[in-house]
Amino acid sequence: MTQSAMPDVQSSFDPRNIEIDRVGIKAIKHPLTIVDGDHRQATIAECELTVALPADKKGTHMSRFVALLNAEPLVLSLATLPDWTRRMAELLHAQTADVLFAMPFFVEKSAPVSGQKALMDYQLSLSAHLDDQGQIETQLELVVPVTSLCPCSKEISSYGAHNQRSHVTVTARVTDASLSIVDLIGKIEDQGSCALWGLLKRPDEKYITEYAFDHPKFVEDMIRDVAGTLADYPGIDGYRVTVENFESIHNHSAWAVIDRLGS
Amino acid sequence: MTQSAMPDVQSSFDPRNIEIDRVGIKAIKHPLTIVDGDHRQATIAECELTVALPADKKGTHMSRFVALLNAEPLVLSLATLPDWTRRMAELLHAQTADVLFAMPFFVEKSAPVSGQKALMDYQLSLSAHLDDQGQIETQLELVVPVTSLCPCSKEISSYGAHNQRSHVTVTARVTDASLSIVDLIGKIEDQGSCALWGLLKRPDEKYITEYAFDHPKFVEDMIRDVAGTLADYPGIDGYRVTVENFESIHNHSAWAVIDRLGS
Amino acid sequence: MTQSAMPDVQSSFDPRNIEIDRVGIKAIKHPLTIVDGDHRQATIAECELTVALPADKKGTHMSRFVALLNAEPLVLSLATLPDWTRRMAELLHAQTADVLFAMPFFVEKSAPVSGQKALMDYQLSLSAHLDDQGQIETQLELVVPVTSLCPCSKEISSYGAHNQRSHVTVTARVTDASLSIVDLIGKIEDQGSCALWGLLKRPDEKYITEYAFDHPKFVEDMIRDVAGTLADYPGIDGYRVTVENFESIHNHSAWAVIDRLGS
Amino acid sequence: MTQSAMPDVQSSFDPRNIEIDRVGIKAIKHPLTIVDGDHRQATIAECELTVALPADKKGTHMSRFVALLNAEPLVLSLATLPDWTRRMAELLHAQTADVLFAMPFFVEKSAPVSGQKALMDYQLSLSAHLDDQGQIETQLELVVPVTSLCPCSKEISSYGAHNQRSHVTVTARVTDASLSIVDLIGKIEDQGSCALWGLLKRPDEKYITEYAFDHPKFVEDMIRDVAGTLADYPGIDGYRVTVENFESIHNHSAWAVIDRLGS
Repeated sequence: MTQSAMPDVQSSFDPRNIEIDRVGIKAIKHPLTIVDGDHRQATIAECELTVALPADKKGTHMSRFVALLNAEPLVLSLATLPDWTRRMAELLHAQTADVLFAMPFFVEKSAPVSGQKALMDYQLSLSAHLDDQGQIETQLELVVPVTSLCPCSKEISSYGAHNQRSHVTVTARVTDASLSIVDLIGKIEDQGSCALWGLLKRPDEKYITEYAFDHPKFVEDMIRDVAGTLADYPGIDGYRVTVENFESIHNHSAWAVIDRLGS
Repeated sequence: MTQSAMPDVQSSFDPRNIEIDRVGIKAIKHPLTIVDGDHRQATIAECELTVALPADKKGTHMSRFVALLNAEPLVLSLATLPDWTRRMAELLHAQTADVLFAMPFFVEKSAPVSGQKALMDYQLSLSAHLDDQGQIETQLELVVPVTSLCPCSKEISSYGAHNQRSHVTVTARVTDASLSIVDLIGKIEDQGSCALWGLLKRPDEKYITEYAFDHPKFVEDMIRDVAGTLADYPGIDGYRVTVENFESIHNHSAWAVIDRLGS
Repeated sequence: MTQSAMPDVQSSFDPRNIEIDRVGIKAIKHPLTIVDGDHRQATIAECELTVALPADKKGTHMSRFVALLNAEPLVLSLATLPDWTRRMAELLHAQTADVLFAMPFFVEKSAPVSGQKALMDYQLSLSAHLDDQGQIETQLELVVPVTSLCPCSKEISSYGAHNQRSHVTVTARVTDASLSIVDLIGKIEDQGSCALWGLLKRPDEKYITEYAFDHPKFVEDMIRDVAGTLADYPGIDGYRVTVENFESIHNHSAWAVIDRLGS
Repeated sequence: MTQSAMPDVQSSFDPRNIEIDRVGIKAIKHPLTIVDGDHRQATIAECELTVALPADKKGTHMSRFVALLNAEPLVLSLATLPDWTRRMAELLHAQTADVLFAMPFFVEKSAPVSGQKALMDYQLSLSAHLDDQGQIETQLELVVPVTSLCPCSKEISSYGAHNQRSHVTVTARVTDASLSIVDLIGKIEDQGSCALWGLLKRPDEKYITEYAFDHPKFVEDMIRDVAGTLADYPGIDGYRVTVENFESIHNHSAWAVIDRLGS
């Protein structure tokens, strides 16, 4: 039996009359090249690719998502994402579509005193939504790890102050595809008590210890400072920030959310 | 230095003039008793407790969330959740508040032929939002595992059909606190190709194998049938469903979303 | 067709002549009561239950593991674990058997200055191995979170010192079933730069900040101090310790292992 | 204060007289190129790099692990791993050392009937241990997803048979650095009821459905067949296999272990 002779169950009529907002594939890993200005690196993304399914159609064509992923080497950027999304929607004969690529992203950083270089990893997601008016909305999400040092602990103690690793998670609607992801990471890192580095020598460690002690911040301080930064950041229109402090004095997290994404 | 003599950094004035939507604690485990009608069981929840922080306040009082959790043995139900949320908001002097408890939830099920009894576990979350008008909105979220059997595979193959475990995740706005969680789980399970059980003897396995083969469903079929069920379910006003099939012929998932939660 | 009339495929002869070390069920959640001296609490375990399968047997009887779990309310302790393991081996007609229960375990702790009480959670596993001589070996595993404060950072900096949450994971062969898990947790916590608490008021936070600053420890210091503690701890014969510091100045962990479990 | 003038706390004498088996860094992500015969691909590894620390030394030099990772673009293979491990040990002045790189690994597969090509991902770890005699032992670990179809379900049912995704995890001591990872993956896949593919058209789906139905296997069958394959596989001396079936009729796994790694 050839393929064309086989029944195409997915294409048959569906009598329930319920539109599906999004249907497709999830949790599929794929290698790609991520491009950010002059910055270009190979990485591995976990992908989520979906389209809307009209109320009268029984099923979508799952294999086409995978075929598109494998059609050619994938080079991803804020600039190429909209076209890729439109291409997917066409291939699936869909009016609206969503794509999401989540991946590790590396930046080479120089230690603050010794200048020694090493990569730091961040978690980056790029996503796009094609609406039924043919408009594309692009978002990026970054998880930026920083140090937070507790102002209360510093203030009330005769010496020392508890500090810990924190995750700043920023989701931003991007209106300018030339936005620099590397630059944005740096601006977010600046709002912690101190940034992190992969490779630090003793003079760097002294610098960072003292810098964090000089910049104590509650989870509330960091989230406000990140929100303030994003409100003024060119190419961003709407954002959501969460900050999670993996408290070094508790077995739970301090956590805050500011949501200015709108809808 | 006594506590009252120590500077209270959190209570000081904040000049940035940025309101924080939610701030509090996250990723804290706590034992509790969950009550659903006559069903009452001990479980362990992971909790997320937050309040809004006005633009002029520097910080919230994190320890009060933990104090409230530990004030007395926690007995949780759709009926008790609103009062607990109000109590938390008062303790934190907050206008709006959010609580979330995520926990394993067990139902004793009888195997379909042998009748042998065993527990099945589901993932349950109960959450509440207190808004600035003093209104509480309650939601529940359930992850219900089922079998899905592929209609296309059945149709085109001379024998057999691929099938797999699937997760149906339902988020529902609850307007009737007497809603039965156990009943809702059963209604959701009915929409899979077959339900799952913890303990099955051979006659049960024969029954389930044939039942699933007689009820082939795409991810699109299951999500529509669950959506149809929820649309008519008493005590639910708005829902979001996702279905994820952990495909037995791929190393990725088929996945769908229907969102009728509104806002 | 009744069950006895159905073919029992699992019980048939296997010609490959390969013994299977362990076969059974995994990733099954079950509620139980954990008992440690006077301490008794409801919790939820994730269970791993396996037996050896002789070279000539095709399969084991998976449903019997689940039936045993559900036979009666499970009350687990270092003292009851061996009998439960023997019972499982008998039910499966197996010579050797392994059981593992992994669960959250709570201890009520009083804050160091204010004395305020709250639960702290630890991750506890109890496991037993029945060997072909009929001997049972019992092990416990604890993940104990503590603070670590870096001695180098303190020494080289004019003020402050970076610190962070750390996980001390202890696996110990238990020779005395009356060993107190709560006591052992306390002794492990004592080897960090400071212990953690769920609920802390400002005088407690001052105490902890200064205590940690007065007890700086590298990952190497903590692991040696834990190893020294376990070497002398009554009722323990053989141990393995790992310590992971979730560094507050890096996006990676410092990690160490001392293995004195033998075999 | 220059670095050489700063106290080097790590290098000082330790009086506790406890040797540390392994100390270093963990949970650090790094991009690398993995090479397997003619197969060469960019991927992202999570790394674990440790050395032994003598009883009289207070601490190791954590930053050197990171410096080595960043010294030059990392090209990893079974052949290059031993030298890299020796280089690390020298840099740390250590007698014994362990390295572990865990990463996604992709193979382009052609669908069995249509021949359409797409990548499939596997989880691969390469590790090496340098012992105090200067000998290196190299291991690889692979997680290979396959389909398993239940022989009992097939035998007792009038039609159909439950099946599901399974993970075959193989840890092998490698004695021949020219061993082909791609070939080994294929040989492991052959032991499932059927292999998986990323991209399948309808004729492929028919083929796979029928193939799996014609090759029913218990978790016990698959693990024995994989063990038999590994016992005869050139370049492997010692192995451990686990097989986990994510049962489509239960909310738990069937699981088996055969350990022929020795020590």
